[in-house]
Amino acid sequence: MKKQPKLQTINEPTTTGLDQGRSRVAIENVKPEIDCGRFPAKRTVGESMSVEADIFADGHDALSALLLYRKEGVSRWTEIPMQPLVNDRWRGAFEVQEIGDHYYTVQAWVDRFKTWRQGLAKKVEAGQDVALELLAGAELIELAAKRAAGEDRKSLNHFSAILRGDPSAAIQSGLDEALAILMEKYPDRRWAVTYDKELRVNVERGKARFSTWYELFPRSCAGTPGAHGTLRDCTERLPYVAGMGFDVLYLPPIHPIGYSFRKGKNNVLEAQPGDVGSPWAIGAKEGGHKAIHPQLGSLADFKRLVAEAKKFDIEIALDIAFQCTPDHPYVTEHPEWFRKRPDGSIQYAENPPKKYQDIYPLDFESEGWEELWNELKSVILFWCEQGVRIFRADNPHTKAFAFWEWVIGEVKKDYPDALFLAEAFTRPKVMYRLAKLGFSQSYTYFTWRNTKSELTQYFTDLTQTEVSDFFRPNLWPNTPDILTEYLQFGGRPAFMTRLVLAATLGANYGIYGPAFELCENVPREPGSEEYLNSEKYEIKHWDLEKEGSLREFIARVNRIRRENRALQSDRSLRFHPVDNPEIIAFSKRTEDPSNVIVAVVNLDPHHTQSGWLDLPAEGLGLDPDQPFQMHDLLTDARYLWQGRRNFVQLDPQSVPAQIFRMRHRIHREQDFDYFM
Amino acid sequence: MKKQPKLQTINEPTTTGLDQGRSRVAIENVKPEIDCGRFPAKRTVGESMSVEADIFADGHDALSALLLYRKEGVSRWTEIPMQPLVNDRWRGAFEVQEIGDHYYTVQAWVDRFKTWRQGLAKKVEAGQDVALELLAGAELIELAAKRAAGEDRKSLNHFSAILRGDPSAAIQSGLDEALAILMEKYPDRRWAVTYDKELRVNVERGKARFSTWYELFPRSCAGTPGAHGTLRDCTERLPYVAGMGFDVLYLPPIHPIGYSFRKGKNNVLEAQPGDVGSPWAIGAKEGGHKAIHPQLGSLADFKRLVAEAKKFDIEIALDIAFQCTPDHPYVTEHPEWFRKRPDGSIQYAENPPKKYQDIYPLDFESEGWEELWNELKSVILFWCEQGVRIFRADNPHTKAFAFWEWVIGEVKKDYPDALFLAEAFTRPKVMYRLAKLGFSQSYTYFTWRNTKSELTQYFTDLTQTEVSDFFRPNLWPNTPDILTEYLQFGGRPAFMTRLVLAATLGANYGIYGPAFELCENVPREPGSEEYLNSEKYEIKHWDLEKEGSLREFIARVNRIRRENRALQSDRSLRFHPVDNPEIIAFSKRTEDPSNVIVAVVNLDPHHTQSGWLDLPAEGLGLDPDQPFQMHDLLTDARYLWQGRRNFVQLDPQSVPAQIFRMRHRIHREQDFDYFM
Repeated sequence: MKKQPKLQTINEPTTTGLDQGRSRVAIENVKPEIDCGRFPAKRTVGESMSVEADIFADGHDALSALLLYRKEGVSRWTEIPMQPLVNDRWRGAFEVQEIGDHYYTVQAWVDRFKTWRQGLAKKVEAGQDVALELLAGAELIELAAKRAAGEDRKSLNHFSAILRGDPSAAIQSGLDEALAILMEKYPDRRWAVTYDKELRVNVERGKARFSTWYELFPRSCAGTPGAHGTLRDCTERLPYVAGMGFDVLYLPPIHPIGYSFRKGKNNVLEAQPGDVGSPWAIGAKEGGHKAIHPQLGSLADFKRLVAEAKKFDIEIALDIAFQCTPDHPYVTEHPEWFRKRPDGSIQYAENPPKKYQDIYPLDFESEGWEELWNELKSVILFWCEQGVRIFRADNPHTKAFAFWEWVIGEVKKDYPDALFLAEAFTRPKVMYRLAKLGFSQSYTYFTWRNTKSELTQYFTDLTQTEVSDFFRPNLWPNTPDILTEYLQFGGRPAFMTRLVLAATLGANYGIYGPAFELCENVPREPGSEEYLNSEKYEIKHWDLEKEGSLREFIARVNRIRRENRALQSDRSLRFHPVDNPEIIAFSKRTEDPSNVIVAVVNLDPHHTQSGWLDLPAEGLGLDPDQPFQMHDLLTDARYLWQGRRNFVQLDPQSVPAQIFRMRHRIHREQDFDYFM
Repeated sequence: MKKQPKLQTINEPTTTGLDQGRSRVAIENVKPEIDCGRFPAKRTVGESMSVEADIFADGHDALSALLLYRKEGVSRWTEIPMQPLVNDRWRGAFEVQEIGDHYYTVQAWVDRFKTWRQGLAKKVEAGQDVALELLAGAELIELAAKRAAGEDRKSLNHFSAILRGDPSAAIQSGLDEALAILMEKYPDRRWAVTYDKELRVNVERGKARFSTWYELFPRSCAGTPGAHGTLRDCTERLPYVAGMGFDVLYLPPIHPIGYSFRKGKNNVLEAQPGDVGSPWAIGAKEGGHKAIHPQLGSLADFKRLVAEAKKFDIEIALDIAFQCTPDHPYVTEHPEWFRKRPDGSIQYAENPPKKYQDIYPLDFESEGWEELWNELKSVILFWCEQGVRIFRADNPHTKAFAFWEWVIGEVKKDYPDALFLAEAFTRPKVMYRLAKLGFSQSYTYFTWRNTKSELTQYFTDLTQTEVSDFFRPNLWPNTPDILTEYLQFGGRPAFMTRLVLAATLGANYGIYGPAFELCENVPREPGSEEYLNSEKYEIKHWDLEKEGSLREFIARVNRIRRENRALQSDRSLRFHPVDNPEIIAFSKRTEDPSNVIVAVVNLDPHHTQSGWLDLPAEGLGLDPDQPFQMHDLLTDARYLWQGRRNFVQLDPQSVPAQIFRMRHRIHREQDFDYFM
């Protein structure tokens, strides 16, 4: 006998008529609404939360609708009138001003006064006798007066008296805008319909939306070649990182590295004496996830790094890699947190037929899972206590979904400003699920999207669909794991192209340096995306002053990002046609639009490409009949354009991209003092 | 102080980790799911109910998933294994066999045995030592054996013994398909996840999906010109209607017609003596919605009509027009069911500045609404008792939504086979809402969709989107209210074109006759869509034997519909390119596809049009390398086609359409007896 699943029936018709018979309005298709409200939408402080819904009733009566919202813990709703768009679609918006969960829903009702007023206007226009209509209006106003008090009540009673008096004065008053506004304050909401869900929007601080990441290995920061860098060396590197304009410095795991099955240089199975191992092989006799690798320094050094970084407006982001080496203290202290093989040994990681004997995955299904989860939560809280507020989760898609939703919620109870980046390069639905569960930002497929059609399709999906309500892309042209073929074969121009794309397509982006700015592009072997002599397995000494470093270029791009609000959000991204498949063009704008950025990028790192760019007639505030100035913020060159079609040409050997700021007003003779 | 709305918070995160930590599977995006399960999907008896969902978990473990379903009132679920498609999408299907509500949901779990089996295969292929893996497999099998009984338990224990024995036999048994099938019967579902909604599918009888309607005015059925036709005359007309192949005979309201403000011929305000009024002006001293207009005959006559129709496989459909004339008994018996004007008079219908003083709308919001609703329900039940099971609701979009959901549900409790057609020509979201609320079929915009792009767009929306799960189109080329301009100006070919389109695009369609088959096409005035001397306001005498009647053509089209199952559903509709904008082509097929119909229609009623038709390489079972026969069921001509592109030519003066049945097998020399 199979066990019958226990299920809750929630979709029995709830409005079966005889209990809510007089509530005539239907509210449908509310957006945003992620998975029927199971997950919250996302915004950052100061962003606008626009809500739309289909709202309609039977018949031809006029409706009124409100968007209701409240912060978690506040019981009183704030009410915002919604406006009809077309085709029974309505919209309202509010600005979210605080970190934390907010709730919103929609309420609507048949508005008898509005209906009456529209009918009156039409009848008057058709010259009909409206004596009875005026009395009907007076009745509605008198009912509203009973709901009002003070001056408003007095005014309403005054209006109703007029409507019961001389017809021509009555008509004029009945159609008076002031009366309509007053009546709007005292609607008859007895049979108002409220949408059957309170939907949630989770608000995070601005950095969730706009951040500029730099990843480096502290052990490669030593001044002397061959020496093991320390957190102090890393602290010395802050001016360099800040000089390029980064505001998040992300460190691979800084915990003790295991010895058993340690990998050697270039990931060979047998480490040689002196090989330092991978920072992601966490745990040794010196400690686990709450300890610092002794060669990096002390907890005090770490706290000093955090404090010094703050002076440069840089936040330290730590890596959360919940996995253990065979030497991790958990293995002996909590063997129940790992899966056993039939011989009693602990199951190492594998992806058959591949084996990863240096890593023991934690078993999120184990008998001791509750204790395990609480321990992992305590790891994050520990680093929060040391001043860390940004965490990059390593391979979150190989840990239980429920764990992430729980642990992110728990951490935010104590540290509402904590942010989480999901480092998952996996199937699209899994990536989206992680974002829904609470990750503030997510790695993307940008890394492998190189052509115009790939980029256009992918970023249209990310920014112009429901995905934009829960998934915040963070774009990485490279990582310690990924040296793409585009970078391997495109030379320095390829690095510039990918940097501009990442920094302008994504309000959140990051690079793994100094490999990136030094244009490191040699793979371990042909066809591999691994770096040769990867920093994951050995200490590197980078020559930061090397000729050709993109340091200054990156600094300029990041300054452009800071100075142009349009680039600090992904919502407004739109692609524009160029009649050359090697050139991609897109724009971002502020809502006003006081700040409009148009990026034009040559995707071909080898040849100069040119073409005609088509800008849209609407949306960018462009007047196609007037000349306007395009100011290339990368080169400071200014171009005079007119109309929708303009010529662009990009030489990858100088700068493969232009980041234009549109400046609409062109000076004219009238602006000349003597003109008048 | 504004009243705070009372709301239920249902979207607090429910899976907060520590209560369901070991349930790792996510189930998302289940289809069909109408408005988060608020409304049921629709099917008819015998149809397949295909359900899809995104199903995935963290990591790389293999999953198993079930589609669960049960009929209302049955507590036990039937379980159907779901199969993975691509991109984490899964599908399962069941056939609905009974009228009434059914529930369905999805269950899935991490399948440790399946995971183990896949891993074993890969390790064996890589030549790895699998001794421990075999023991791990034996453990899983032994656990399953405990869940099994009888022969199955014995078999499982036998398998586990083998897995603990000689390695090469163990490997072979571990990968044995028989073991996999056996293990699938006893899965470990302790941490299975069941989708959090039970979704509903409402099943109606086949006629909801496939029906052929004929509308006529009984009062125009008299044998003698000028005489008032009766229900007996209407009964005499049955062989004529059946001869054309119709199976639903829909009558405009048959109730007593009011006298106050009765409209004259051609809808003039003042009726002349002898004017018969509009059947939709319901109610007089002779009775209301449960009475029969005296000049039509008696209730006994009506019941005889229903019974006689049945002999021709025709069902009588009645009009539900819930509105009253000032003479309706309700007006004096229940004045509280109508809205009052300030002078105490009853508010007539209006759409300012237009007035309809012959009609009093019922006030669905009135204080007496519960009593009113129950009375209206009793009207429908009364006619059900007389043998009627199909109702066409007049202007349902001007009556409360909640009323329809309630009353349709109530009627179906007693008469599960009752069907309802929504006669709403209104805004799209309102039309869809009515369908969701329970109407079996709906009028559509087909009436005004004439061009290829209009038809393609509209019918793609209706049949290839979620709309197809709740909205069943019923296509009318004309109605007593609508003589389209296409029919006014296109002559007889226009009527043929529109008939073929209605009958092939829509599994449900209807015509208003005899106006249609006699190609009546004179409007009241230029620019009007009203018929001149409309039957709505006067008695007509139709010359059924008139030359040019489409009677035989209609009979042929309807026979084609009956004989080809492909045309009895809208789900498979697909449009195919023709390089001529005046020719539209589309196909329908059965699932097998043993029955494939391709319709090609010339939309230009004035000129012969030709072009090249592109059939798809897939979906119709077409082998582009083989010749195939296209059998035009309208003319019985047979064409030999080959490949995807073939020539079509249609002369509207003969037949403006071809309804091909694809016949794949063409005889060859091998079929000749002496060939071998």
